[in-house]
Amino acid sequence: MNELSRTLKTDEITQLVLKKTLDIVCGKWRLYIIFQLTDQACRYGELRRRIPEVSEKVLVQELKELVALGVIEKTTYGETPPRVEYSLTERGRKVLPILLQLKTVGETFLEV
Amino acid sequence: MNELSRTLKTDEITQLVLKKTLDIVCGKWRLYIIFQLTDQACRYGELRRRIPEVSEKVLVQELKELVALGVIEKTTYGETPPRVEYSLTERGRKVLPILLQLKTVGETFLEV
Repeated sequence: MNELSRTLKTDEITQLVLKKTLDIVCGKWRLYIIFQLTDQACRYGELRRRIPEVSEKVLVQELKELVALGVIEKTTYGETPPRVEYSLTERGRKVLPILLQLKTVGETFLEV
Repeated sequence: MNELSRTLKTDEITQLVLKKTLDIVCGKWRLYIIFQLTDQACRYGELRRRIPEVSEKVLVQELKELVALGVIEKTTYGETPPRVEYSLTERGRKVLPILLQLKTVGETFLEV
């Protein structure tokens, strides 16, 4: 437990923790983007092809937020034209198994 | 696989499944309310006491939606005054372990 958790009541920590979880999970395409990076890094253009339903503006915004949250990272290769790839961070990889299980929640209530 | 899944492409099913997951999980207090019902049924008044930060209007709305989604159920006992209790449904209980793991996602990125 670090400084943050020593000063807060358990309830407050749980609320902070759940808020951070919801930041990562909630958002129409956020999980969907994360799942595209399960096996390997992916170029922006490839992500656009894989999720045709998402607009360019929304995809750029969601990628920016997932990078800011520390779930994915953006790597730019100094080539011409520059190559940009997105991949899961170490922490992103660590929580991936839990996120993948979230499909079971939807399946349980959809009965597919 | 039922009728629904036979007609849809895998992508469409995944999107439907994730949308249902997000319906259940996303919402500032949804997970927090579900976690209050982990061990036993809970009266409305008790839920209000346990989550003082949530307004009456929001709590009533979130409970209504969680009932509509089939995650929790509302039982009214014909007493005077009538006693109303909320509890997890069988399907709610089934996905509870996955939902509880979502705390780990927030903890991983908050480092509490």
